[in-house]
Amino acid sequence: MKRIVVEKKILEKNDDIANSIRSLLNKNRVFGLNVMSSPGAGKTTLIERMVEALKPKYKIAAIDGDLDTQRDAQRIAALGIEAVQINTSGTCHLDSSMVQKALNDISLDLDLLIIENVGNLVCPASFYLGTHKNAVLISTPEGDDKVKKYPTMFNVADVVLINKMDIAQFVNFDVEKVEQEIKELNPNAMIFKISALKNDGLDEFLNWVEDNIQSIKNQ
Amino acid sequence: MKRIVVEKKILEKNDDIANSIRSLLNKNRVFGLNVMSSPGAGKTTLIERMVEALKPKYKIAAIDGDLDTQRDAQRIAALGIEAVQINTSGTCHLDSSMVQKALNDISLDLDLLIIENVGNLVCPASFYLGTHKNAVLISTPEGDDKVKKYPTMFNVADVVLINKMDIAQFVNFDVEKVEQEIKELNPNAMIFKISALKNDGLDEFLNWVEDNIQSIKNQ
Repeated sequence: MKRIVVEKKILEKNDDIANSIRSLLNKNRVFGLNVMSSPGAGKTTLIERMVEALKPKYKIAAIDGDLDTQRDAQRIAALGIEAVQINTSGTCHLDSSMVQKALNDISLDLDLLIIENVGNLVCPASFYLGTHKNAVLISTPEGDDKVKKYPTMFNVADVVLINKMDIAQFVNFDVEKVEQEIKELNPNAMIFKISALKNDGLDEFLNWVEDNIQSIKNQ
Repeated sequence: MKRIVVEKKILEKNDDIANSIRSLLNKNRVFGLNVMSSPGAGKTTLIERMVEALKPKYKIAAIDGDLDTQRDAQRIAALGIEAVQINTSGTCHLDSSMVQKALNDISLDLDLLIIENVGNLVCPASFYLGTHKNAVLISTPEGDDKVKKYPTMFNVADVVLINKMDIAQFVNFDVEKVEQEIKELNPNAMIFKISALKNDGLDEFLNWVEDNIQSIKNQ
């Protein structure tokens, strides 16, 4: 009981800061995308593909959340964009105050801000960061039962990317069942079947990102 | 700052209850094993294999943590042992009070109590449940960078099971690098390379479980 009260206070404070981040992004006409998934589902590889494809046309920066290493931000920065690593030292998600601090180190002369959350299919879903959209990755080797087991995460998704489709055949992944369960839980979520590693199936998702960038620009 | 203080209080209360669970397990000569991993790394399949192999010789029960579904406990109960599902309704880990409640529904005339934690490579590591040992699964498609990215979890592991070795070749998993990083971080952790799905490489791990069961019996 006590714990629930405390958590509400934390979430209220988180939302206040997130709302100010959203205002800042809107003022600067920056589309903010929060990317979430289990550990190892392919967030960083997806973001690498996004940067490779969109960098010729748009100004992009990334914020990478991780418990302890700087590997993710190093991978993204190697593509020639600004990337800030947040190390949460054990905390299982990013919160808006961490993002606010990271934004002090990023010029907002941008079109797209990508936030790579901590690898976790539970906690990040509860912490609004002020971004405009949530992208949730699920990878085929995790198994085809994740939508019903982690409903909070799939409920907050604007897009679900089913990744590692190239090895779906080796891991008995029933993609139709997963698509059906996503549609039942969250009918508004768009679904894209991709292999980020093989750079396969990403065109529609990239179009969706570009549409969002344009939509913010034209606000 | 405020949050850290609260978390300490929660962890202290958690440890008090966990210690009483440990006493209860010891009194009844039951070996308690806490199984943790990312979502979809293969916890339930591993536990199915354990039950199939050990049920002829030992009395086993399982407690399964999940956000929302009863699928895991149903899968385990289908093998003819007692299994209790804990639904955490969004909480990212089991805590000792949840386990204590579940134990009210389980006869402790047992040799082995297996606890399947919520699929999460972060939070469960911080909540001691009173079990004697921690088994951490990592699966090859998650990628070979997880040890350094999730050090808290690998620090608390007594055994690390590298699962889905049967598809390691399709996902560019460098098993020697992972073994080296585990040894550097936690030299006491035993490492087993397995495929739970194919029932391959489990003998040594099962011997380790049996040794622990016998060791508690002979206390």
